[in-house]
Amino acid sequence: MSGVFDHPWLGGLFADDAAGVIWSPERQLAHMLSFEAAYSRALGAVGVVETAKADKAAKLIAGFDVDIANLRVGTARDGLPVPALVAQLRAGAAPDLSDAIHKGTTSQDVMDTALALTIKDMNALLSTRLKALDGGLGRLIETFGTQPLMGRTRMQAAMPITVADRIATWQTPLHDHLARLAQMRPRVERLQLGGAAGDRQEMAGKGADMARMIADDLGLYCPDRPWHAMRDGLADYGGLLSLITGTLGKMGQDIALMAQQGVGEITLAGGGGSSAMPHKQNPILAELLVTLARFNATQVAGLHHTMVHEQERSGAAWALEWMILPQMALATARSLAVALTVCDQITAMGGPSQ
Amino acid sequence: MSGVFDHPWLGGLFADDAAGVIWSPERQLAHMLSFEAAYSRALGAVGVVETAKADKAAKLIAGFDVDIANLRVGTARDGLPVPALVAQLRAGAAPDLSDAIHKGTTSQDVMDTALALTIKDMNALLSTRLKALDGGLGRLIETFGTQPLMGRTRMQAAMPITVADRIATWQTPLHDHLARLAQMRPRVERLQLGGAAGDRQEMAGKGADMARMIADDLGLYCPDRPWHAMRDGLADYGGLLSLITGTLGKMGQDIALMAQQGVGEITLAGGGGSSAMPHKQNPILAELLVTLARFNATQVAGLHHTMVHEQERSGAAWALEWMILPQMALATARSLAVALTVCDQITAMGGPSQ
Amino acid sequence: MSGVFDHPWLGGLFADDAAGVIWSPERQLAHMLSFEAAYSRALGAVGVVETAKADKAAKLIAGFDVDIANLRVGTARDGLPVPALVAQLRAGAAPDLSDAIHKGTTSQDVMDTALALTIKDMNALLSTRLKALDGGLGRLIETFGTQPLMGRTRMQAAMPITVADRIATWQTPLHDHLARLAQMRPRVERLQLGGAAGDRQEMAGKGADMARMIADDLGLYCPDRPWHAMRDGLADYGGLLSLITGTLGKMGQDIALMAQQGVGEITLAGGGGSSAMPHKQNPILAELLVTLARFNATQVAGLHHTMVHEQERSGAAWALEWMILPQMALATARSLAVALTVCDQITAMGGPSQ
Amino acid sequence: MSGVFDHPWLGGLFADDAAGVIWSPERQLAHMLSFEAAYSRALGAVGVVETAKADKAAKLIAGFDVDIANLRVGTARDGLPVPALVAQLRAGAAPDLSDAIHKGTTSQDVMDTALALTIKDMNALLSTRLKALDGGLGRLIETFGTQPLMGRTRMQAAMPITVADRIATWQTPLHDHLARLAQMRPRVERLQLGGAAGDRQEMAGKGADMARMIADDLGLYCPDRPWHAMRDGLADYGGLLSLITGTLGKMGQDIALMAQQGVGEITLAGGGGSSAMPHKQNPILAELLVTLARFNATQVAGLHHTMVHEQERSGAAWALEWMILPQMALATARSLAVALTVCDQITAMGGPSQ
Repeated sequence: MSGVFDHPWLGGLFADDAAGVIWSPERQLAHMLSFEAAYSRALGAVGVVETAKADKAAKLIAGFDVDIANLRVGTARDGLPVPALVAQLRAGAAPDLSDAIHKGTTSQDVMDTALALTIKDMNALLSTRLKALDGGLGRLIETFGTQPLMGRTRMQAAMPITVADRIATWQTPLHDHLARLAQMRPRVERLQLGGAAGDRQEMAGKGADMARMIADDLGLYCPDRPWHAMRDGLADYGGLLSLITGTLGKMGQDIALMAQQGVGEITLAGGGGSSAMPHKQNPILAELLVTLARFNATQVAGLHHTMVHEQERSGAAWALEWMILPQMALATARSLAVALTVCDQITAMGGPSQ
Repeated sequence: MSGVFDHPWLGGLFADDAAGVIWSPERQLAHMLSFEAAYSRALGAVGVVETAKADKAAKLIAGFDVDIANLRVGTARDGLPVPALVAQLRAGAAPDLSDAIHKGTTSQDVMDTALALTIKDMNALLSTRLKALDGGLGRLIETFGTQPLMGRTRMQAAMPITVADRIATWQTPLHDHLARLAQMRPRVERLQLGGAAGDRQEMAGKGADMARMIADDLGLYCPDRPWHAMRDGLADYGGLLSLITGTLGKMGQDIALMAQQGVGEITLAGGGGSSAMPHKQNPILAELLVTLARFNATQVAGLHHTMVHEQERSGAAWALEWMILPQMALATARSLAVALTVCDQITAMGGPSQ
Repeated sequence: MSGVFDHPWLGGLFADDAAGVIWSPERQLAHMLSFEAAYSRALGAVGVVETAKADKAAKLIAGFDVDIANLRVGTARDGLPVPALVAQLRAGAAPDLSDAIHKGTTSQDVMDTALALTIKDMNALLSTRLKALDGGLGRLIETFGTQPLMGRTRMQAAMPITVADRIATWQTPLHDHLARLAQMRPRVERLQLGGAAGDRQEMAGKGADMARMIADDLGLYCPDRPWHAMRDGLADYGGLLSLITGTLGKMGQDIALMAQQGVGEITLAGGGGSSAMPHKQNPILAELLVTLARFNATQVAGLHHTMVHEQERSGAAWALEWMILPQMALATARSLAVALTVCDQITAMGGPSQ
Repeated sequence: MSGVFDHPWLGGLFADDAAGVIWSPERQLAHMLSFEAAYSRALGAVGVVETAKADKAAKLIAGFDVDIANLRVGTARDGLPVPALVAQLRAGAAPDLSDAIHKGTTSQDVMDTALALTIKDMNALLSTRLKALDGGLGRLIETFGTQPLMGRTRMQAAMPITVADRIATWQTPLHDHLARLAQMRPRVERLQLGGAAGDRQEMAGKGADMARMIADDLGLYCPDRPWHAMRDGLADYGGLLSLITGTLGKMGQDIALMAQQGVGEITLAGGGGSSAMPHKQNPILAELLVTLARFNATQVAGLHHTMVHEQERSGAAWALEWMILPQMALATARSLAVALTVCDQITAMGGPSQ
């Protein structure tokens, strides 16, 4: 079974290529290796192992050809892929490199930091698309903004407004979302480095130094403490994703309502066809914006439940993040792309209505 | 990006092979073709088209080699794959067969009925696994049931009970779930046949007859009316899936608590390893039961929101079902398989505790 | 702060008087006392205490004037009111009655059984109202059913249907809800009797006999086992409540869409006024149906999470039920009442539309 | 029926007095009148009505004795209390004051601004309590921080850590929550002023001036545009509330686990008693932290759904906020108070464990 995002045909509706790459297993693995390599380099830099050895290990890791099938077997056994990955790395290295690989760190450091790198890439995409959509809506205001529109409250005609007034309710929150994103970045684009139980005790007293180095190396923020058991950053991030899709869900709902026969306040090129009614022009992308909004609104609850993350590591709560957060990100990227496409599809807005 | 169920390595933890086949795109497509073929046969049987022609069309459909890439393009355009599928079928048929293919039915009939067929397969799996797990827990009771166990309320030692008492709280609900499943089957394993606007008006007055025939043909229940805009059956089904994973989530939570050092009320063979602490035996499958329970508990809300399905077809609400229900089913199948594995992993239960 | 259901003015919109009584603290307390009295009588009937003493205790309990302020203090201390309640009962009784009061049972028996009695009352209300609404919708079909209506799919005009077709999508699920309710009653209108750790060990070997007697006495089903740590019945019940409000939410959404200017497919008497636009007739009750549907759809997730109810009693999961289930019931009762009122408000349906 | 927050006895567990006042109907009404009075003053200040008349109206409003029963009747009729409130105000004023009362504004301006004032009060409470809890946890670290503790991952003993390490996972996020609160205030403590359809068209071209004046008058931020149909601020606020309870839910879960017999890593004074087992000391407040976390995690989804707020005002989506947000705030306030109490109850932490 494929989820909708990589379904052979439903993917035509739901998939976003750029976000698909950012959240792909290949990229996740590359980020895990980036962490391991940076960790090895840091081991050398602080003198836990010789620099030359550290560099050798890092080089090996960076170019390592991972056996994915073995990773899967390991995940089935251990609940996560890192023990198998580390075993592969060590088996592929000269024996004396073993203590320059992964020594003192732990699976969660690898996976959470890899996630932070993914989120960093995602945030660049979000920022670009939020601005592009802001521009697209701005162009709609330029073109159609002065057209009259019936303001509707409680689904009833209220008072005449303009098209610009309606679009402003789609556009204004984008500015707030950009502000939220900027404020949030240090709380999510950040290194996780804690070691086995989160206190860096096996890092030879050099944990803080290593953290700064690895964060610099990877282009991440370096928090004061490891966040392995404090998941508020990710839950908050899921919230931002859902705020974005919520705004676009309102846009989609409004457009579907404007497109109704008898209302006729918008004209869209390229609506979807029906197998039974070839005359129809369905506003499928507007509907999709609503779908994605309600999907994310549903998921955000799950991420908030993961905050009850017991002790130093909750496998139960952590794995729930893996199930939910990537899908929310893909839904958000798709929603932004769809909204921008919808802007381009609009050929008329406003006009006489009752 | 892959969801966890078909992720190259996380799939080792989350994937269920049997359910993966049941919910696979290939099987979905096969069910869609089964519906289309049965529909063609029914057109012949009620005399809308000649029987020979209907059979010819049905035969063509049943063996049709679908162009998946084209289906994806069509889904991107129309919001669902059926218009493209029907176009392929007609293009692949002799021109005079066109009116024996899909005529009078609509995309939703095809997709909802295909879903009903998937659910029917899934229900057989659920039933088998619920009974197997019932047996597995029964065997645990036979083996360990008389062992003493400290009953715990509010996470505090309360009064001594037996292992059988604890296991009964995992096993008893399985019987209720089987009863629920039996009661629910007619409400989900049922044909959808409505045509363009749900009233079968383009079926030449033969809609009811055709519905009975197609339902018989496909082995589905035949409801009194089409259910295209009444989604309570599916929301209820999602509820049952989540009730099952909820029961198993309690089992998993209990086992993880019993396995704690200092409590030591259970011994599990084959726990997961740690990349930093090779001595550990992590109860990863017990944790996974909790994860899957909370995943489904989160998702069930989304399915209930889809019930606000406006008018004769809500693209927005319908597509949300596509995003959520298959994942819930996969999570449930995996949870049952995991619970059964956990039963087999248990080598000791109960014993002296404080 | 008041919730909306008993808010001094918002209650005008949200409150349901009949359900308010059923779920009132007074009624809850009365049910708790009913359980305690029945328990005392059962202690006598099985010979654990003398019958005369048991009857005396039961009589005292049934007529007991509870000190609510003390109950609140006790709840703050113990997390639930029963220890304080039992202390009051014993303090108010002759010393020799003490062992005929509550002896061998526990707080959860009292509270869960009281809840089962509340649910039984609620189910009578649900059944009555579902049938009344079925009748109300049937009358609408009689009056307006043959009127033409534009069938709408994806918010676009599709094919002409009739008003009866549209109403059928509101009415048909009510029959399924009644069937679900009947099937579910034995799984929720049932005695809870487990004692301290759920195994009835302090009931002198008479637990099963006592359970049958108390269940008979209270008019409840007697399950094979106590259900203190198996919460699937309640989660499923919450699901049914949400299925009902979901169906009515669709009805409300449809009506709000039909009432739009430019669509004009329904006329409602008694719409709500606006402080700024006295000319408006807002379909506030139709909107309320949508609100209540989405409220319950949200809450149902919380109830499913409570199924991860660890060991013999989870205070954390149990208290979450207290926060959620009563509100869902009140929302459902209100939704049914509102839907019936809406039926009465409709003065025209269907007619020429585009 | 009472919700748990004002339930006669459950309130002993769930109610928070200070938050109860902030979210009380009386305070809501006072805020609504504050807005109306400020609006009247602003009408005078910009010259729409004479200053003396405006002041007279404002004075009347500020001291007005509202008929609550009539407000309830009005809410039942109009879906909200403002039309009835305005009618009362006008009926209680000299006839010539009518155009100095509410003229040009609308119900949503009144209610959303009143909510913003409530949130402002709430934020002061949140800030105070977050800091107090930060202090309480700091004191625990001072007292017990150097004690050894077994670090536990996946509920299994991992590596020895210290009590300070564990507490840091409860304390550190509080600093982030304070930062989030500060960043969020301008997005929620803000005036809503839009008039009938949100474009201030009936404010005689003085809308922007009036907005600045009223915001200053009420001590609120003045956003660039009305936010009547952009609900991301409130959804985000609900998210913050749930992040806070999520952090404290983790703290509660950890404490309940530490308090287990066989683990014995914490000693709490004042645990709850049991009606059947007087020897027990139940960690009911720790459990309550988990309950409140999962309650808010559930509710946050509902608030995100309200973002699909169609057109210029969605009665359906708006009323859902009324049902959910106040409860989340009360749960959060209670959670913070409980966490602080728990800090005071702790008499020992850490110590030898396995």
